Amino acid sequence: MKNTFGSAISVTLAGESHGGAITVILDGILPGLPFDADYIASRLSLRRPSGSISTARREADEFSVLSGVFEGKTTGTPICLTIPNADTRSRDYEATAALPRPGHADYTAEVKYHGFQDYRGGGHFSGRVTAGLVAAGAVCALALHRCGIFIGTHLSLCGGVEDRPFGNLAEDLAFLSDKSFPVLSPEAGERMVAAIEEAKREGDSVGGLLETAVTGLPAGVGEPWFDSFEGRLSHILFSIPGIKGVAFGSGFGFASLRGSQANDPFAEENGTVVTKSNHSGGINGGITNGMPVLFHCAVRPTPSIAREQDTVDMKNGGERKLAVAGRHDPCIAHRAAHVVNACTAIAVLDLLAERYGTDLTGLSPLSKKEG
Amino acid sequence: MKNTFGSAISVTLAGESHGGAITVILDGILPGLPFDADYIASRLSLRRPSGSISTARREADEFSVLSGVFEGKTTGTPICLTIPNADTRSRDYEATAALPRPGHADYTAEVKYHGFQDYRGGGHFSGRVTAGLVAAGAVCALALHRCGIFIGTHLSLCGGVEDRPFGNLAEDLAFLSDKSFPVLSPEAGERMVAAIEEAKREGDSVGGLLETAVTGLPAGVGEPWFDSFEGRLSHILFSIPGIKGVAFGSGFGFASLRGSQANDPFAEENGTVVTKSNHSGGINGGITNGMPVLFHCAVRPTPSIAREQDTVDMKNGGERKLAVAGRHDPCIAHRAAHVVNACTAIAVLDLLAERYGTDLTGLSPLSKKEG
Amino acid sequence: MKNTFGSAISVTLAGESHGGAITVILDGILPGLPFDADYIASRLSLRRPSGSISTARREADEFSVLSGVFEGKTTGTPICLTIPNADTRSRDYEATAALPRPGHADYTAEVKYHGFQDYRGGGHFSGRVTAGLVAAGAVCALALHRCGIFIGTHLSLCGGVEDRPFGNLAEDLAFLSDKSFPVLSPEAGERMVAAIEEAKREGDSVGGLLETAVTGLPAGVGEPWFDSFEGRLSHILFSIPGIKGVAFGSGFGFASLRGSQANDPFAEENGTVVTKSNHSGGINGGITNGMPVLFHCAVRPTPSIAREQDTVDMKNGGERKLAVAGRHDPCIAHRAAHVVNACTAIAVLDLLAERYGTDLTGLSPLSKKEG
Amino acid sequence: MKNTFGSAISVTLAGESHGGAITVILDGILPGLPFDADYIASRLSLRRPSGSISTARREADEFSVLSGVFEGKTTGTPICLTIPNADTRSRDYEATAALPRPGHADYTAEVKYHGFQDYRGGGHFSGRVTAGLVAAGAVCALALHRCGIFIGTHLSLCGGVEDRPFGNLAEDLAFLSDKSFPVLSPEAGERMVAAIEEAKREGDSVGGLLETAVTGLPAGVGEPWFDSFEGRLSHILFSIPGIKGVAFGSGFGFASLRGSQANDPFAEENGTVVTKSNHSGGINGGITNGMPVLFHCAVRPTPSIAREQDTVDMKNGGERKLAVAGRHDPCIAHRAAHVVNACTAIAVLDLLAERYGTDLTGLSPLSKKEG
Repeated sequence: MKNTFGSAISVTLAGESHGGAITVILDGILPGLPFDADYIASRLSLRRPSGSISTARREADEFSVLSGVFEGKTTGTPICLTIPNADTRSRDYEATAALPRPGHADYTAEVKYHGFQDYRGGGHFSGRVTAGLVAAGAVCALALHRCGIFIGTHLSLCGGVEDRPFGNLAEDLAFLSDKSFPVLSPEAGERMVAAIEEAKREGDSVGGLLETAVTGLPAGVGEPWFDSFEGRLSHILFSIPGIKGVAFGSGFGFASLRGSQANDPFAEENGTVVTKSNHSGGINGGITNGMPVLFHCAVRPTPSIAREQDTVDMKNGGERKLAVAGRHDPCIAHRAAHVVNACTAIAVLDLLAERYGTDLTGLSPLSKKEG
Repeated sequence: MKNTFGSAISVTLAGESHGGAITVILDGILPGLPFDADYIASRLSLRRPSGSISTARREADEFSVLSGVFEGKTTGTPICLTIPNADTRSRDYEATAALPRPGHADYTAEVKYHGFQDYRGGGHFSGRVTAGLVAAGAVCALALHRCGIFIGTHLSLCGGVEDRPFGNLAEDLAFLSDKSFPVLSPEAGERMVAAIEEAKREGDSVGGLLETAVTGLPAGVGEPWFDSFEGRLSHILFSIPGIKGVAFGSGFGFASLRGSQANDPFAEENGTVVTKSNHSGGINGGITNGMPVLFHCAVRPTPSIAREQDTVDMKNGGERKLAVAGRHDPCIAHRAAHVVNACTAIAVLDLLAERYGTDLTGLSPLSKKEG
Repeated sequence: MKNTFGSAISVTLAGESHGGAITVILDGILPGLPFDADYIASRLSLRRPSGSISTARREADEFSVLSGVFEGKTTGTPICLTIPNADTRSRDYEATAALPRPGHADYTAEVKYHGFQDYRGGGHFSGRVTAGLVAAGAVCALALHRCGIFIGTHLSLCGGVEDRPFGNLAEDLAFLSDKSFPVLSPEAGERMVAAIEEAKREGDSVGGLLETAVTGLPAGVGEPWFDSFEGRLSHILFSIPGIKGVAFGSGFGFASLRGSQANDPFAEENGTVVTKSNHSGGINGGITNGMPVLFHCAVRPTPSIAREQDTVDMKNGGERKLAVAGRHDPCIAHRAAHVVNACTAIAVLDLLAERYGTDLTGLSPLSKKEG
Repeated sequence: MKNTFGSAISVTLAGESHGGAITVILDGILPGLPFDADYIASRLSLRRPSGSISTARREADEFSVLSGVFEGKTTGTPICLTIPNADTRSRDYEATAALPRPGHADYTAEVKYHGFQDYRGGGHFSGRVTAGLVAAGAVCALALHRCGIFIGTHLSLCGGVEDRPFGNLAEDLAFLSDKSFPVLSPEAGERMVAAIEEAKREGDSVGGLLETAVTGLPAGVGEPWFDSFEGRLSHILFSIPGIKGVAFGSGFGFASLRGSQANDPFAEENGTVVTKSNHSGGINGGITNGMPVLFHCAVRPTPSIAREQDTVDMKNGGERKLAVAGRHDPCIAHRAAHVVNACTAIAVLDLLAERYGTDLTGLSPLSKKEG
C-alpha cells in the first residue's frame, strides 16, 4: 500500500513535482460534512512558499474537486482533489540529472526505479507532493472540528532560536491557526527568520524542531499492539520529507528521567479523570488517556543547498562536484509544520472512525439530509 | 489490524500477562529456512529478566512450535509459536485492580475495554507479551542472516551514564549478539547497573536510550510515500511498551544542524556508491541508500514503582494513594533492546519480501528441496 | 496477508493436518461478550466427521482458550484458540508423498513451497484446518446473535437429490442450528445420504450445493466499490476447500432473466422499506438493503477417492497410477456448510464493526462492567 | 479500504456519473514499462456504449495522465489517470431522485449515505465509474503481456443464445481482443443482439453469462488460506455492477459431478506437469497449477428499464410507480466483459507482484534504463 495510508479513512497520493498535477483521493469521510473550500485553500496557502525564506517557485495551488462533493457537502464516497503544476522550470534539473544531491532522494530513487523515475524537481519525492496531503488533511480537520478536536503545530526551535513552549492550548492553537510561519513568540519568530536568511546568504540551510498538540480527543483511542496511537501517527509523519525523528510527550527526555518524575499522577477534575502532568503526551499503552496529545518532530535542514558538495555520476560513474541550482527553500521546517498538522488530522480521524464507525456514530451524531 | 503487523511478512500477537500463554503467528516466511530453535531460545533468554536489576518473576520461556515447521525447516505456511505463562502471582494485582498505576495502561485499558480487560499484571499490555515478538523476530533474523543482514542494539544512555558510540559495526554487532545487558563498554555497563540498583533501592526506576544498527541492507528498500522505511519501522517500534521516541540518523540533532553539515556527500568505493558520513542513517526519501541503517529509541522509566503515587479509584470514584506492589523491573531499557532487535527484523524482512517477493527471489535464491 | 482475513475484525489461521495443533487468533471482538464455550464446542461438533459418510479420522476437537477471555467474557483483546491434532496416521501419506492427488493441492503446494511443505494429510491445505475457522466463526456468531443477526446453511443439492427451498427463515434457521447434516427436508436428507454411501462403495465421492441465509442485517452494510458485501464475503468463502462457485440471490439464474423479472419492487411494510421479491439476495450495489442475504456455494466432490487415477511422480518424474489410501470423506458438502456459516459470521461481523465501530456502537450498545 | 483494492499492486477509484471526472490511481506498477496510451484508449473504446444495444450517452473517454509516466514509460510511482465526464444530462434524474429504481443502488446508497449521495445517474454506483477500472486494468494487462500472460472474456450466454465454448485459447483470445461485443461465434452474436434489441423494444433488459480465460500463468500463484487465487479475484469481480455470481472451472456444475469425473488427472507433457482435463479451472487449493485459469461470471439484467415498476418515496414516504427515463443499456453483459478483463488483470498482476516482488524479479527481468 505504498501511496495509500489509513484504514477506515484512507488517503491515496499521486504526483510529481513537474508532472501534470498532484492528485489525492480521500476515502471514508462521513457523508454530509460541509465542504469548506475556503478552509482547504487557506491550509494550502499556509504551506505555500512565500517571502525571502522560501523557494522562488510560486504555485497558485488552486485545486479542483473531481468527486465526492455534492451540493456543498461530502457524499461519503471518495473525494478526489487535483492541484495542477504550473510554475515548473525543468531545465534547472536536466544538467544535473545524473548527479544526485547529497541528502536528497535522487540516488535512492535511481536505484529503486532503475533510472526510470521522473527526476525533475525531485519528481515524486518533491515537497510539492505535500500539497495533496495538506488538502486531504484539511478535509479531515473539518471533520475533527465538528467533534471538538483541534490540532496545531509551532516551530519550537530553528536556527538556534527557541520559541516559547505551549501554554494555554486553546488560545495557542487559535493563534497558530492562520500563521504561515508558526511561532508562539513573534519576537522569537523574527530571530528565526533572520537566522534562516543568514543561512540562505551563505548558500546553506537550517533544520528545526516542531511541537504539535491535539486537543479534545476522547480517552480510549488507539488499537494495541501494533496500531498504537503513536505507531499509526509516526507512520504517516515519517512520510513527510525531512522528518527524521518523532517523539511523544517528554520523548527523548524520558531517557534521563526517573519513574517518579516521568509518571503522570491521576486526579479527578469535574468528575473526569485527568493527569496532573502530561509527560506521556496524552497516550498510555498506545491509547489516548483524554489529556492533550503532544509530540515533537525533528526536521532536517533542506538538502538542496547552493554550496558545492561531493557527489557521483550515476550514469557514467566517477566522483563529481555539485552546486545545486534551481529554486529551493533555505528552511522547510515552518512549511513542514502545516504538513504535520494535515498528517495528524488524517491519522487521528482514521483511528476515530475505526473506533466509532464510518459515521463516527456516538462521537458526533449525523443528521439525515432533509427531504 | 490491531494485533497484526506487516504485509508480505506478518506477525499476529495474542496473550496476556496472566493468561494461558503468549501466542504469535508469523506468516510469509519463505519455505526451506532451517528452523534454529536454539537461536530462538537464546533470543528469548536475552530478553528474560535476570539478576538484581529485573523483576523477580522468572519464566522459563519454553516455546512450542504448533505449525509451520516440518523436518527442521520452515514450510512457507504460518509458523505458530506459544509460550506458556507459568510464574504468575495474580493476587498481587487484585487489591489494586481499580487503582490505575500512573504511566501505565491500566486507565486507558479500562476506558477502551469498558472494564472487561484482564487487569492482572497489565494483561495484554504487559511487557510479558513481547516474548512473542522476540520469538517471531528471531525467525525473521535467521532469514536476514542468510541474506547477510544483521541487526544489533546497545544501551547508549542509562542512569546518566553513556555507552561508547558504535565503531566497527561488524565487530560491535557480533559483540552485542549474546549480551543480555547490551553495552559496548563494559565499564559503562557496570556504572549503569549501579545506577539502576540505586534507583531500585529508592523505590524508583530509570529510563534509557537505545541505538540500533542494521548492516548489509541493499539500496532501494522502502515504499514511498507512506511505506517509507522510517514509517514502517517506527510503526512497529512504537508498539514496544515504554518506547516514546524514534529518530533516524542524526535524529533530533538535525534541528540544530545546517544543510552543509547534515548532508552526506556521495563517493565511490570499490565501484559502489557510498556516503562519506551517515547523518541520514542510511535512508534518503524513505528508501535505503546502502549504508547502515541507524536509529535511536527513547525508553521511558518503568511506570511501576514502589513509591507512593497519586491515583484515582476507577470503580468507586475518588482520589487514592498507590504504592505498586508486585514484581517489577527498575529499568526495562536493556530488555527493550532485544525487542527492538526483534521488531526491526520483522519490519525489515517485510519490506524486503515486498520488494523481492515472498521467496526473496533475486536476493537470496532458494533451492528446491531434494527428492 | 495470506492467512489473516478481515479489517475491523480479523482472523489469523495456522496449522497443518498432522502438526501440533490448529490455532486461530480472532481480533477485534468487542469486550464484555459472554464467551459461550459450549456453543463453540457445539459448532465444532457439527463440523466433525461422523457416521458412514465421513472420514474415519475422529478428532475430539477440544479447544483451549489461550487469551482474550477473562471471567467468562471477552476482553476486547485477541482471542487465541488452539485445537490439538491427536488422531493422525502419517504413515498413510508417506508412500505417496511424491504422487499428487488429482484435484487436491498436493502439486500446487509442491511448486509453491519448493517441496518444503508438510505433505502429511494435505498439511496446511487439509480440511482439518477449517476447525479453526469454525471456532472463530462461532465467537462471531455469538456477537451477531446479540444484534439479532442469524446465519444458516442447508445442503440444497447433493447426489442428485434436491432439498426443499428456504421457507420461513426464522423457523428454518432454528431448525438447521443443530443439524450436522443440514437439510430442511429429512426425507431428502435420507436420499442424499444413500447417494453418498453409494458413491463411497464405488470408491468415489460426490459434490453438492449449499444455500445460506443471513437474517436481521440492517440496510447500509458494505463498502463500495471494492469492499462490497459480495466481494468481502466471497473472498473468505473461496478460502474453504472445495468451494468453487459463489452466487448471490438468483445468481447464475440472472443470466436467463429479464430486468422486469429480476428487479425486486420496493414496498412499505410497517413503516419500513422492503422488497416484494428477493432476487438480489438482499444486496444492491454491494450494500445490504435490509432483506435477508441469500447466496449459494458450489462444493466440488472430495478429490481424495479410492479409485485409481493418473498422476505424476514429483520427485523422480514420470507418470504413475494412484489409488488414494488414508481416511477420507465421500462428501464434504454437508461439513462445508458449517464452515460457510463460520466464514459468513466472520465477514459479516467485520463489515458491521467497520460501519458501526469496534464496540458496535449504535447497533448494540455495550454496557460498562459493573464495579 | 473501501475504494482501494490490492496489495503489491493497488487501484484506487473515485468519481460519480455526473461529477467532474472519473479518477483512478494505480500504484505498484514496475518502472520502465512502455506506457501504450493507444492500447489503453482501445480498451476504453471497447467498453464504451455503441449502436442500438447501448445507452445513448456517449462519452469520448479521453483520459489524461496526471502522474507516473515519464518519457513514455512508467516511473514506478503512482499512475494517475482522469477521464472527464462530459455528456451528462442530470435533469433526467432530478424528478425521480426520491424514487429508488428497483434492483439499483439508489435505495441502499440513500440509507448508507443518509441522503447526501450524488444521486444523479447513479452517482458513485454508476457503470460509468468502470471506465477507471478499464483504464487501470489496461496498464496491468500491458505488464502481463510482457510476461506472456493474456486474458480474454466472451459472452457465453445472452438472451437465451449460447456462444460456442472456448477452443484453442491462443486463437480465441486473439480473436476476442478487439471485439466490442465479444462472442466467438459471429452467428450466435447476431442472434444475441437481436434478442437484446427485442428486449429494448419491450422496455426491458436482459442478463448474460461471461466466460474468462487467463493463459500463461506460472504454477504457484495464490496465497492460502485467505488470499487464494479465487478469493482475491472474486473480491474484485463482485465490485463490477451487475455481477452476482463467480464460479471457477466446472463451477456450479461440480455439485452434480462425482470425484472421478471432476478430478483432473496429471500427466507430463514436454517435461512439464499438466492436467488432462481442466475442471478445476487451473486452480487447486487456491494456487494456480499452470493450466489456463477459467471462470464464469453471471451478469444480472440492467435494473434500469422503461417498464413501470413499484417503488417507494424515500423523502416523503409512501408507495409509488416508476418508469425509468434517462439513457440506459438494455444489456450490460457485453460491456461488463471488458471490465471483467480489467479487474482480472489487476488481481492477477497483484498476486504476481506479491510472489515475485515489485519488479517481478525472476518472472520478467527488468533492464536498467540506459544512461
